[in-house]
Amino acid sequence: MAGGSGSRFWPHSRKKRSKQFLSLVGKQTLIESTVRRFLPLTSPDHLFVVSNIGQKCEMEKQHLPVPSQNIIYEPIGKNTAPCIGLAALFVEARDPEAIMVVSPADHLIRQEDRFRKTVMAAVSLAGQKDALVTIGIQPDRPATGYGYIQIKENLGKLNGISSFSVRTFAEKPNLATAERFLKSGDFYWNSGIFIFKISVLLKAFEKYAPDLYEALLTLKKVIGNNNYEETLEKVYRQIRGISIDYAIMEKADNVFLVKGEFEWNDLGSWEQTYKLSKKDSDGNAIQGDVVTMDSRNCYISTSSGVIAVIGMEDIIIVQEKDATLICRRDRVEDVKKIVERFKRKNLQKYL
Amino acid sequence: MAGGSGSRFWPHSRKKRSKQFLSLVGKQTLIESTVRRFLPLTSPDHLFVVSNIGQKCEMEKQHLPVPSQNIIYEPIGKNTAPCIGLAALFVEARDPEAIMVVSPADHLIRQEDRFRKTVMAAVSLAGQKDALVTIGIQPDRPATGYGYIQIKENLGKLNGISSFSVRTFAEKPNLATAERFLKSGDFYWNSGIFIFKISVLLKAFEKYAPDLYEALLTLKKVIGNNNYEETLEKVYRQIRGISIDYAIMEKADNVFLVKGEFEWNDLGSWEQTYKLSKKDSDGNAIQGDVVTMDSRNCYISTSSGVIAVIGMEDIIIVQEKDATLICRRDRVEDVKKIVERFKRKNLQKYL
Repeated sequence: MAGGSGSRFWPHSRKKRSKQFLSLVGKQTLIESTVRRFLPLTSPDHLFVVSNIGQKCEMEKQHLPVPSQNIIYEPIGKNTAPCIGLAALFVEARDPEAIMVVSPADHLIRQEDRFRKTVMAAVSLAGQKDALVTIGIQPDRPATGYGYIQIKENLGKLNGISSFSVRTFAEKPNLATAERFLKSGDFYWNSGIFIFKISVLLKAFEKYAPDLYEALLTLKKVIGNNNYEETLEKVYRQIRGISIDYAIMEKADNVFLVKGEFEWNDLGSWEQTYKLSKKDSDGNAIQGDVVTMDSRNCYISTSSGVIAVIGMEDIIIVQEKDATLICRRDRVEDVKKIVERFKRKNLQKYL
Repeated sequence: MAGGSGSRFWPHSRKKRSKQFLSLVGKQTLIESTVRRFLPLTSPDHLFVVSNIGQKCEMEKQHLPVPSQNIIYEPIGKNTAPCIGLAALFVEARDPEAIMVVSPADHLIRQEDRFRKTVMAAVSLAGQKDALVTIGIQPDRPATGYGYIQIKENLGKLNGISSFSVRTFAEKPNLATAERFLKSGDFYWNSGIFIFKISVLLKAFEKYAPDLYEALLTLKKVIGNNNYEETLEKVYRQIRGISIDYAIMEKADNVFLVKGEFEWNDLGSWEQTYKLSKKDSDGNAIQGDVVTMDSRNCYISTSSGVIAVIGMEDIIIVQEKDATLICRRDRVEDVKKIVERFKRKNLQKYL
C-alpha cells in the first residue's frame, strides 16, 4: 500500500512526493525498503504495489524490482479497504487460492529476518485457520499515536512465533488508557500489516461490507479489459472511503494476531525520525551542510544550502530547496496543520 | 566610508556583499541612504565614497548619484585612519581649504533634517575653531556595544545644536560602566561621524601619527598619475591598520562634540534590525513567504522560498537562496563566530 499523501513530513514530503518516496532513515526510500523486505519470500512478479495515479511519475522514478503491470494506480485515495480489495482482485485473477500479505509502504522495519519469520508464521496461520491475521507489535511504551489490538487466547507458537486469537481493536488511546493497555500486557500495537487468503478476505467483504463487495464485483469484471480505467474511476468516485480495520477487522470473528518481535516504527513524524537517527555528542542528528554552536538535541537536515544554528535546543529544522520548517520537537503534530494554512496565505506552490 | 566587511549579518551579508550593500530596514541599501542623506547639503561631485576593491562590482550595481571618479577603492582594508587620510588627499587636491564630513555608510539615521542641521553646526564649529569635531549621540540606555565620548565644557548652542569640548574617548564599556556613563549625563555615544578642515586633519596626522602622515605624503604625489594604483597597493601593504579614534581623536586636544538629537542606530546585529522593524500582533517581524503558528517575538526573513515556524519564541531566522541562519535573539553576537567555523568545515563557499 503506497498511496499515502501525508503532510506530516513537509517540507520533505509534498503533494507529489509523499512519505513512501522519502529516505527518512538510511538511503533507500521507504517504498524501496518495503519491496526489498519481501523479495527473499517470493518472486518479484508476486509483488504488487497499489499507489495513487497522481504519484505515477514519482513511482516510476523508483525503479522498483516489480513488473510494471503489478503496479496498480487508484484514481483517488479511499483509505485502505478499497485499496486492499482492489489488490485482492488482481491477485485472485492469478490464483484464487493465494494468500495475500498486505503491508504499508511507509514504515520502518529493522531485524528483517525476524520480520520475515513472523510473516511466514502469519501465512501458515491464515492458511490453516481461514483467518484474518494481523501482526501485533509488543508495545515498549504507552504510545498514544497507534491503534491497539487486544488478544484473547494464546494459541501457542508457530515456528517460534507466538500467536493469539483477537478480542478487540482499540483506536488511538489517550495517555492514561495507553498506560493501562501497556500494564495489562494483552494489548499490541496495530502494525497495519494483514495476512489472509484471498477467498477469506472476499468473503469477509461480502459479510461485513456488502457495498464494497458489490463495487469489487463490478471491478472484477473489467480487470484486463479496455474499459477497466473508466470503470475504476466511476467505482472509486462512488465507493465509501474506509479503513480495512473499521470495515472488516473490527467486525470479523476469525481475526488472529501473530506477535511481531522485530523493530518497527511507523515514522509518524519528524520527532520519530529524530529518535531513530544517529546523534552526535550534543544529541544533534545532522544531515547536509550544517554548522551548530551551543545547540543540543536538534534534528537538522538540509538537502540544499547551509544552515547555521546558534543556541537552539529540542528543535526540528528541515530545509529543502524552496522551503524550510522550524518546529519545536514537542509540536511536530502541528506540521500538518501549518501546511493547511498555506492555502489561506496563497502559498500553495510550496505544498 | 563604505569598506566594511562584517559577517554579523550573515547570511544576508557575504564576503562580496557587506553590510553597506544591504537593505536592512526599508528598501534602500544603507550606502544609498547614506549618500542621499547628504545630497541636500552639497552637490554630487562633492561626495566621495571610499570602498574596497573587492566590492567594486557590488558598488557599481548601486548606481549612486556620485561621479565614478569620486569612488575611491582601497586595495585592502586598514581601518578608518588610512581610509580617511586617503579621502582627505582627494579632497585636498580639489580644495585645500575644504571642510570634510566623514560618515560610515552602514548606519541607520532617521529624522534626517535634524541630522543635516547637526552636520552643518559641526561644519561651522570645525571652520571657526580649527577643530576636530565629532557627532555624539545622547544615550537613552546603557548600551555596551558602542564607544563613548565624555564631554568637558559646554560651548553653548550653534544654530540650536549644543556643542562641547571633549575630555576623553572611552571604549565599549561593560554594563556597570555603561550605567555609570548614562547616569553621569556627560557621556555620548561615538557615532563615528567626524567633521574637520582638511588642513587641520593633515596637521593632526603629522603630529599624532607621523608614520601614516609619511604614507599620505607618498600617496599625495601620485594621485592622478599612472603609478597611483601601484603605489597605493605598495603603501597599503605596509601601512598600519588603525582607527581614526585611536590614531588621532583620542590624542588630539582640539576635539569638540556636537550633540546629535536624531534617531541613530549603527545596526550592529540582527537583534537591532529586529528592534527597528515593524512587528505584527505576535511581535514577529516578518519579510517574505512566512507562515507562523504559536510563535512570538521572532525576526523571520526569507528572500528565497517559504519558512514555516511552529512554537518558537525570541528567534532570528534569516533565509537566503543557499543559506539559513537560526539563532536565539540573545546570541546574535555569535553570528560572527559561527561564520568563522565555516572554514574549518570546508563550507567557505557560503561566506
